[in-house]
Parts: sequence; structure tokens; C-alpha cells
Amino acid sequence: MTLEEAIRKIKPINMKMCERARIKWDNIGKPLRSLGRLEEMIIQLAGIQETENPVANKKAVLIFCADNGIVEEGVTQTSSDVTAIVTENFTKGIASINSFSKVCGADVYPVDIGICKDMKLDGVINKKIAYGTKNMAKGFAMTRRECIEAIEVGINLIAELKKKGYNMIITGEMGIGNTSTSSAIISVLENVPVEDVTGKGAGLSKTGIQHKIEMIKKAIEINKPNAKDPIDVLHKVGGLDICGITGAFIGGAVNRIPVLIDGFISAVAANCAIRLEPQCERYMFASHCSAEPAGELALKAINKEAYIKCGMSLGEGTGAVVGAKLFDFALAAYKEIGSFEDARFGRYELFENPEL
Amino acid sequence: MTLEEAIRKIKPINMKMCERARIKWDNIGKPLRSLGRLEEMIIQLAGIQETENPVANKKAVLIFCADNGIVEEGVTQTSSDVTAIVTENFTKGIASINSFSKVCGADVYPVDIGICKDMKLDGVINKKIAYGTKNMAKGFAMTRRECIEAIEVGINLIAELKKKGYNMIITGEMGIGNTSTSSAIISVLENVPVEDVTGKGAGLSKTGIQHKIEMIKKAIEINKPNAKDPIDVLHKVGGLDICGITGAFIGGAVNRIPVLIDGFISAVAANCAIRLEPQCERYMFASHCSAEPAGELALKAINKEAYIKCGMSLGEGTGAVVGAKLFDFALAAYKEIGSFEDARFGRYELFENPEL
Repeated sequence: MTLEEAIRKIKPINMKMCERARIKWDNIGKPLRSLGRLEEMIIQLAGIQETENPVANKKAVLIFCADNGIVEEGVTQTSSDVTAIVTENFTKGIASINSFSKVCGADVYPVDIGICKDMKLDGVINKKIAYGTKNMAKGFAMTRRECIEAIEVGINLIAELKKKGYNMIITGEMGIGNTSTSSAIISVLENVPVEDVTGKGAGLSKTGIQHKIEMIKKAIEINKPNAKDPIDVLHKVGGLDICGITGAFIGGAVNRIPVLIDGFISAVAANCAIRLEPQCERYMFASHCSAEPAGELALKAINKEAYIKCGMSLGEGTGAVVGAKLFDFALAAYKEIGSFEDARFGRYELFENPEL
Repeated sequence: MTLEEAIRKIKPINMKMCERARIKWDNIGKPLRSLGRLEEMIIQLAGIQETENPVANKKAVLIFCADNGIVEEGVTQTSSDVTAIVTENFTKGIASINSFSKVCGADVYPVDIGICKDMKLDGVINKKIAYGTKNMAKGFAMTRRECIEAIEVGINLIAELKKKGYNMIITGEMGIGNTSTSSAIISVLENVPVEDVTGKGAGLSKTGIQHKIEMIKKAIEINKPNAKDPIDVLHKVGGLDICGITGAFIGGAVNRIPVLIDGFISAVAANCAIRLEPQCERYMFASHCSAEPAGELALKAINKEAYIKCGMSLGEGTGAVVGAKLFDFALAAYKEIGSFEDARFGRYELFENPEL
């Protein structure tokens, strides 16, 4: 499916099913609305899956792995080699996301969408668009065509996972240099100074962060991305991993599957997806708030609020996997708690607008 | 064990083990400090359990159930009957906390510490101190002796649970009227206006909240609790459930078992425990932030910050049970992720104070 076709296929979530889920919650024997955002979560899920009885019992973590040309400017603590190494670690089950996914009950799918090295490795989905992007401080990170292709990789992977029975997608990424591209994108899209949205990534000194800021500024100056055109921004100062995640959010909306935002990088991709098709927003859920300086801004920009505030900044989807577990709690309450009759106490009265 | 004996037995957490856990985290193959507060969580746990390899694999939810005399003033939507009914529901596995605990992997222990009715029921721990408290709008809620006895119930239950092999305690409560007592206590202890710390509880209209505020003010006026003496405050305007939870926090510190704070009511009890013995603070963990207006204030007052912000206000321990799951994620990472050598990339350098 092409990006254009995908966007045409996206429909709003089913508000009738949202209403039915709202009514169901209000008939469950507990103080009305007392599970707060966990109730909202299931209501949105009902609208996405078009059923009063939504599910999230088969979860996939889709980790888009790619390298970034900007790394040659010394904006990171480690070299690009680490991208391939950690991607291999995903297949061996020894990375952070593997441990987290076991606790959550989610399956891990690493995708090579642009690693520098060849990754002929069982357990890595090969969707390589290029051997890393070009150095955005010297020109476009990738061509417009490559950018669209990378987005389409994300879109089509969601359809494949849906066929495998997955009903919840957790976004993740691995790519040395990808906080630089994320900062560049959000600075342009939200028209905020690079200084305000640039942090230490996996680790930088104060001087290192200053240099990173300068390189991002240079990339924006040279490429002049058009904030009104997310594809223009993505191909000029983005990364293949971010394009892939953007596609995953679009694919979620096409296939009516909820997609979880992880941290800063993932929220930037979510922003791009929403700009390409605003309905995508209703198919996404926030999870945690990244410790990166723009973590909160990146969520606020898309009207999302984190459920979890643990100061995490590891990436790989680790925050979103924790967030995914919240659905298990919310769904258990939604499906198992009896009615007011079962609970043997009177129906609570609701004072939504407590003017009485 | 008496309250006095318990307080004498409390020691600081083991800072040497905290340091060892810090070193272990810093040798795990991932960007340094990138799991943020999840790392801090395990460091504190190591200090509590006095081991570099702490555990949280056997969790108990201790639900203190009690009635409050103030209910006769019409400060709640439902009658006191609901306390006994929901307590019975806990034993049948049909309450919200039962569903949540299954997802978390925690066992539920309801305790009758002051329900109005006799609860001869399998599955309810009978530690009844009184058939509910007296109406605090007319006099002391309970005697000073009853208050201390209720705290001792909490202290001694932790020792019993420790003997059963539990290594994490999750606090919960059930008691119609217990947001009124909580608001009264925090208003006195933190010297904040009753209006600022009083909300709708399980559901009240605007007029209902106004009446609740008046009754709480009346209780404080009549009883003149001494903010410098938490026992004085607890017995005059507290509840038996809150006393029990206070004891659980103290018992956690005595027995070196971590105890999780749930929402507003539990945070108020935590405040009392810390005032009785400041070391208790290091044996506690926050979990979520309650939707009650004083939810955040109650945590801030004890220097805690919620990990989860889901706008929940159900009680029973539901927020703390979600919080308890975070330990499973943190411990999985701590125990399973290999070293930098295993991960096959160079050790990250730490710029804690990025002045370089």
C-alpha cells in the first residue's frame, strides 16, 4: 500500500462504540469514573477496534533500526556501530527491551530500515531503504522518495502484524544519532528554538550538547525544511527510523490497531503522522514522558499526556512497553468487575458538572 | 509488638547496598541512568532489603476496611453498609482490586479493622478494634488507646506477611467516609485550608462537597487536634483504616519490607508514619497520583512523586498495584540485561554534572 492510498483509507474512530464503552463503564460496580484515564483508554480502544469489547492481548514491539549520517559530526557519545550491535542483541534477547517485553507479554520485532551494515540475521526484518542516511549538516538526509518508501515500510508492517493476530503495536527505535534528527524535526514543525529541544541523548557533556545544537542548527539552515510539509522535513532532517515509525502510526489508523507512542523520538514521528492525516491521533496512545528536555513538549504538541513519569530515556520502546501493561489492568477491570447488582450496592450517581 | 517497640527497632536503610546497586546499574549495557527513576527504585529497594539483589516477587495487598462515624452527617453518596459489602466482594474476587491484583500478580488480604458489622467471613482477617469510629463532628473519632492499637494491628500484620514470604506490601483501604478523615488529617498536619484538600470522594455534588467541608471544619474545631502529635490527630479526626495503614508503613520499616503508597488516603497515613519515625520514608514508595484535589499535595508533603498519572480515585489499593508492576520491569532489567561486555559495546561515559 502506498502512503497516498493509506491516507485515503483512514476513517475516524467509531464514536458509537466509544459511547457503548462509556455506558458499560458507568454500569460497572465501582465509584463512577474512578478509574480515570484507564476508562478513557478503553473507550478510545473500543472506537479504534469498532467493538464494545476491545482487546489488547497480543502485543508487538516494532523496533525501527537505522543509522544517521549526522553521527560523523560527533553529535553522539558512541559510534554508529552500536546500532547494528544492539539490533543483533534484540535477536539474542539480551537488550533492555527484551526484558521489558517479557514482563509485559509482548513480542519483539526489530526492523532493519537503514542500518549502515548488512544484517543478515534471523529475527531481523529486512526492510533496508539505505545504508544509513546522509549527513544532514551537509545536505538532505535522504531523498523524498526514500522518505516515502520508509514510511510505507511502516504502514505495510502493521498490516502484516495484524494478519499475525496482533491487536496492539508498541513503537520502538534504535539508531545512534536519532535524538539529533528528532530535535531537528520538532524544532522545525513546532517552531521552537533548537536549544530548547536538544538534550544529551544517550550521554553528552555540556560542550557535547552545545556542539550537537550547532550541528542541528546547521542542518536546518542548509536544508531549509518546509514546516508545512512533513515529508519535506522528514527527508531533509529526519531519519529512516523516524519515517518507519511515522508509517507505523499511519498503518495503525488504516488497520484500526492502536499504536503506542514511546518517548521523544516516537512522539516526533507521531507528530509527523498526525500532520499527514489528523485522524491518526485517535489511533495513538501516549505512554511515558521521556527525560529528554523536549519529552513533554513533544507530547503536548500532539495533545497527549503521559501516563507514566519515570524519567526514562532508553528508547527501544521500553517506555511504551510499560505503558502497554496499563491496558491489561484497564481491560481486566472492564471485563471482570460485575455490575452494581453483582456488587450488591446501589448505583452511584454522577455529578459530572457539579453545579448542584 | 507495641508501637513504641516498633519505632525503637527502625534503622536507616543500608546505604552500602544502595551504592552497590548504583554500581551494578552503571555496569549494565545501556545508556547510563537511562532507566531514570526505575533505577532509583531498585537502589532504594537494595537499601531496604540489605542486599545487592533485591526481590519483589511475592506481593501482598493489605486492605484495611473500616467505617467512619462522620458518615451520619451525610458527607458521602452511599451509606456505611457499602464498606461491609465491598469487603465481602474482596473475598469473592469480584472487586476492582481483585482484577488488578491478578494482572500484577499480587495476593489480596482484606482486614476488618473497624467495620460497623460483624464480618464472620473466610478470607477477611479479623482485627476489629471497634464497630466503626464515632462521629468526629461531635467528638473524638476514637480513643487514643484505640488509635495506637489500630496502628499496632498494621505493624504486626507486616511481620506476619513477612513470615509468609512476602517481600512487597501494597496498601489499600475500603471505608465509606475515609476521604473526609483524610482531608481532616492533612489539613491539620500540613496547615492547609480544608477547602483546598477536600473533594468529591466516591461522588458528591457541589453542594455535597460544601457540606463535607463544613463537617470537616466542625470536626477540627471541636476536637482541636495537635498538629505536632500525629496520634492526637489520628484519634481525634482519623479513621481506623488510616491508623492501620500508618502501622503498615511503620511495620515495613521495622521488617525491612517495601510498602507502597496508594492514593490520597494512603499518602495521608504515610505522612503520619513519617512524623512518628522519619526513617519510615525510605521504606516507602509512591505509586500513582490520586485524582482527589489533594492527591499531589499529599505526596509532595512527604517528598514523594508519583510514577503513574492516570487520574484514578478508586481506592482499595488499585493505584499501588499498578505501581507495584513497575518493580517487575525494573528488576527484570536489573537482573537480566548483560554488562557492556555482553552487549559488545564500549562503556558509556557519565556526565552527571555536565559542566565539561
